[in-house]
Amino acid sequence: MKIAVYPGSFDPVTNGHLDIIRRAARIFDTVIVAVFYNSSKKCAFSIDERMDMLRTATKDIDNVIIDSSDNLLVHYMENNDVKVIIKGLRMVSDFEYEFQMALANHQQNKDIETLFMMTASEYSHLSSSLVRELATYGGNLIGLVPNDVIPYVYEKLQPKK
Amino acid sequence: MKIAVYPGSFDPVTNGHLDIIRRAARIFDTVIVAVFYNSSKKCAFSIDERMDMLRTATKDIDNVIIDSSDNLLVHYMENNDVKVIIKGLRMVSDFEYEFQMALANHQQNKDIETLFMMTASEYSHLSSSLVRELATYGGNLIGLVPNDVIPYVYEKLQPKK
Amino acid sequence: MKIAVYPGSFDPVTNGHLDIIRRAARIFDTVIVAVFYNSSKKCAFSIDERMDMLRTATKDIDNVIIDSSDNLLVHYMENNDVKVIIKGLRMVSDFEYEFQMALANHQQNKDIETLFMMTASEYSHLSSSLVRELATYGGNLIGLVPNDVIPYVYEKLQPKK
Amino acid sequence: MKIAVYPGSFDPVTNGHLDIIRRAARIFDTVIVAVFYNSSKKCAFSIDERMDMLRTATKDIDNVIIDSSDNLLVHYMENNDVKVIIKGLRMVSDFEYEFQMALANHQQNKDIETLFMMTASEYSHLSSSLVRELATYGGNLIGLVPNDVIPYVYEKLQPKK
Amino acid sequence: MKIAVYPGSFDPVTNGHLDIIRRAARIFDTVIVAVFYNSSKKCAFSIDERMDMLRTATKDIDNVIIDSSDNLLVHYMENNDVKVIIKGLRMVSDFEYEFQMALANHQQNKDIETLFMMTASEYSHLSSSLVRELATYGGNLIGLVPNDVIPYVYEKLQPKK
Amino acid sequence: MKIAVYPGSFDPVTNGHLDIIRRAARIFDTVIVAVFYNSSKKCAFSIDERMDMLRTATKDIDNVIIDSSDNLLVHYMENNDVKVIIKGLRMVSDFEYEFQMALANHQQNKDIETLFMMTASEYSHLSSSLVRELATYGGNLIGLVPNDVIPYVYEKLQPKK
Repeated sequence: MKIAVYPGSFDPVTNGHLDIIRRAARIFDTVIVAVFYNSSKKCAFSIDERMDMLRTATKDIDNVIIDSSDNLLVHYMENNDVKVIIKGLRMVSDFEYEFQMALANHQQNKDIETLFMMTASEYSHLSSSLVRELATYGGNLIGLVPNDVIPYVYEKLQPKK
Repeated sequence: MKIAVYPGSFDPVTNGHLDIIRRAARIFDTVIVAVFYNSSKKCAFSIDERMDMLRTATKDIDNVIIDSSDNLLVHYMENNDVKVIIKGLRMVSDFEYEFQMALANHQQNKDIETLFMMTASEYSHLSSSLVRELATYGGNLIGLVPNDVIPYVYEKLQPKK
Repeated sequence: MKIAVYPGSFDPVTNGHLDIIRRAARIFDTVIVAVFYNSSKKCAFSIDERMDMLRTATKDIDNVIIDSSDNLLVHYMENNDVKVIIKGLRMVSDFEYEFQMALANHQQNKDIETLFMMTASEYSHLSSSLVRELATYGGNLIGLVPNDVIPYVYEKLQPKK
Repeated sequence: MKIAVYPGSFDPVTNGHLDIIRRAARIFDTVIVAVFYNSSKKCAFSIDERMDMLRTATKDIDNVIIDSSDNLLVHYMENNDVKVIIKGLRMVSDFEYEFQMALANHQQNKDIETLFMMTASEYSHLSSSLVRELATYGGNLIGLVPNDVIPYVYEKLQPKK
Repeated sequence: MKIAVYPGSFDPVTNGHLDIIRRAARIFDTVIVAVFYNSSKKCAFSIDERMDMLRTATKDIDNVIIDSSDNLLVHYMENNDVKVIIKGLRMVSDFEYEFQMALANHQQNKDIETLFMMTASEYSHLSSSLVRELATYGGNLIGLVPNDVIPYVYEKLQPKK
Repeated sequence: MKIAVYPGSFDPVTNGHLDIIRRAARIFDTVIVAVFYNSSKKCAFSIDERMDMLRTATKDIDNVIIDSSDNLLVHYMENNDVKVIIKGLRMVSDFEYEFQMALANHQQNKDIETLFMMTASEYSHLSSSLVRELATYGGNLIGLVPNDVIPYVYEKLQPKK
C-alpha cells in the first residue's frame, strides 16, 4: 500500500492546499495530512483548530487522514514507517526552500523521498499568510479557502472595525 | 498497480537520470523510461542507441521498462493508460520550464499528474549537453554517465584527434 | 491622449496576449498591438497571417490598432511619437529578459518607459511555442488561443495524420 | 484623467523610489504616493516623518500627492476610485512577491490593475533597509536617498558611538 | 601579499563554510574569517563560541586568521586595509541578496571587491539554521558540521527530552 | 604570482566585460583574457577581430594578456598552469549556467576554482548579443562598448541602409 505524508502548518488550510490533497489522494492509497508545529513558531490558529479545519475541508475524500506532530519530519516518517513526502510548489522561492529541505531530509534518511506537485495556476498566488492578512481587513475569502472554513477564519481573525 | 512514466531525450542518459530512475523505481511498481523524439529536434544519438544505453544502465533494476515515442506526452499517457509523469528538477530554470509543461499537460488531461523529484546534489550540474561537450573534447566522463555507457559516448562523439 | 504599444511576435496570438491587450485597453486611450519581425528569425505564420489573427481576436475592442514593423522597437516608438511600451510577464525567466530589454530601450531613449502587467495566472503556462507544438500534434487548443483563431492555427500547422 | 497609486512603506524614501515616482509622473496625470502602515509592522520612522520626507523629496514634481492609509490597498483604491497601482521591480525576489500581490489584488477587484516599472539599474541594490543599516553605522548615504532627506535619516538613526 | 576577508555569522560554522575557507586559502596568501555581529540580531552561539568553533574547524589550515567585528563590513575592510571579500553562493536567493550587498559595499568604497565562490554541491542545502534546527531535534549532524564542532552544537542546543 | 583567466566569446567585447577585466586586474598580478571558440558555434566576428578589439579596449591596462583557444577550458588551464577562472555575473540566469560550469570544471580538476564578480549595475542589461542587435539596426552604442571598439562593430554589422 502506497502512503504519502503531506506536511505543513495549514494556518489555515487554503484551496491551494486542498487542491494538492485531492490530487495526491488520487495517486496514493492513503494521504496523511500532518500539521507540524513547534513551540518557537507562533501560529494564528491552534493545532486543534487547524486539524479541525482540515477535517472539515477534506470530509469528502475517503483516503485522507489528519494528524499532527511536533517532531522532526524525518522522525515522524520513520515512526510511521512512511517513505514519501508530498509538497506543493508555487514559485521559484518555494522551490529553493523546498529543495534544501528535500535534500536535508534525504541526507537524514536515504529511504525518504519528497515528491513535488505544481500548485494549480489559479492558486499560485495563494498562501495562508495572504488569507490571514485579507481576513484581518475583512477582505473577500471566497475561492481562497474552502467555503466551510471561511467562518472559522473570520471568527478568529475578526476584521478590524 | 502504480505506474509512472519518466520521459526525456536521454541523449545520452546521465547518472543524474539514472539516480531519478532508481529512486522512482522504489516508489512505483513500474517505471516506464520513455525516449521522446520528434523529427524537428536533432539529437546526437539515434533512438535505438539511446534506448540501448538506457537498457544497459538500468539492467539491474527489475521494474523498469524502456520505451520510445514520437507522440505528444499526454497522448502517450492516454494510450498506455498511465496517469503519473515523473520529472527530475535540478535548478530554477528547470523548474520554470517544467512548471509550464506540467500545467500544459494537466490542462490537456485533468487526470494526468506530474510528480517532481529533486536531482541529488552531486548531479545538479549534470546534463546530457555537458556530457556531449566534454566527450567531444576528450574530457573525463567517470561519475557523469553510467560506466557501461561511457564507451558508447566516446565512440559516437569521438574526441578531436 | 495616452497611447501604449504592445509589441511581440504573436506567432500566433494566445489568450494570454489577448488578456493583456484587453486589460491595457482599459488603462490607455489607444493600444497599438505591433507585430515585430526580422528576417533572421523564422516564424510559423506570415506577418499578414499574424496581423489577421490579431484583428480577428481583438475585433470587439474599440481602441486597439494592429500594426507591424521590422524596425528597432525604440525607433518605432520615436517614429510614432509613443512613449509607453506594455509587456506581459509570466515567469522569472520572462522577467530577466524583459528587464534587460527595458533597460536597453530606456538607455537608447530616456523618454521611453516600459510598463509590465502580470499575465493572469490561468495563462502563466501559455506561450505561442506551446500552442504551435500542441497544434502540430493535434492537441486541444480550446482556452489557449481565441476561438476564432483556432481554425487558422490548425490549418497552418496541420496535425500529423 | 489617469491616476495611479504608488504604495509602499517608504521607511525612508530612497532614490530608487523617487526615480519610480518621477517616471510615473510623466506617464500619469496624477500619482498618489501612499504610505501604507499597519500596527503589526514596526517601522523606524513615524507616518508623519515618512510623509514629510516624501513631500520634501517630491516638492519639484507638480502632479504628485502624498497620502497615507492603514487600509487594505484594494479598499483604498476603491474608496478613492483609482484603478491603477504602480510598483517598482528590482529583482527576482521582488517579482515573485509582487506577482502574488498583484494577483491577489486583481482577485479582490477585477478592475484594479498593477503596472510594474523596472527600477533604474543604478538603484537595483537599494532598499530602505539597506539605507537604515548604513545610517546606523554612519555609512555614506549620498546617492542613496534624496539629499534633502539625508539629515532626517541621520538624525533618527544616529550612528553608533 | 593577497589577503581576503570571509565574513559571516557562523552560527555555527558548517562544512559548507569550511569548504569555502579551505578553497579560498589555496588562492589567497591569507584568509581572515571574520565573525560579524550586531546587537539587534540574536544568535544561538556567543561571539567567543563561534570564534572557538571556527578555530577548531580550521586548525589544520595555516594561512587562516579568525577575527570578529561589530563594524560595517566596509569599515572593517578599510581599517584592516584589505580589498577583497570572499562569499559563498549556494542558490539563487543567496545570489540576489549577495548581489545587493556587493553593489552596496562597492558603492561605499570603489576599491573593495567581492569575489564569489560556488558552494560545493554536496553542501548546497546546508545552512547554519538547518544545523540548529536539526540539533534541536536531535537530528544527525555528521557531514554537516566539522566533526570537532559537533559536540559544541549538541551541548548548546541540547535535544528536547 | 597570482594569475587568473577570464574566458569568453567576446563577440564583441562590451563595457561590461571591460569593467570585469579592469577590476580583476587590480586583484590579480596577471589576467589572461582568453577568447574561446569552437567550430560548431557561429560568431559574428573572427577570432582575430575579437582579439584585436580586446587589445584595443585593454591597451591601458598593463597586466592583461589577450589569448585564444579552441580547447576545453579546463585543459587550457592545465596547459598554462593557471588555477583561477574569473567570470562576471549579471543575473539569475547567468548564475545558474555559470554555477553548472563551475561545478563541471571543478569536477574535471579539483584544483581549478572559479571566482565570480558582480557586473557593475550600469552594465547589468548589457550583452554582446544586445550590442550586435542594436548595431544591426543602427542603434546607439556609446556607453555599451569601448569607444575605440565602436567603429569595428559598425563596420562589421553595417546598419541596414
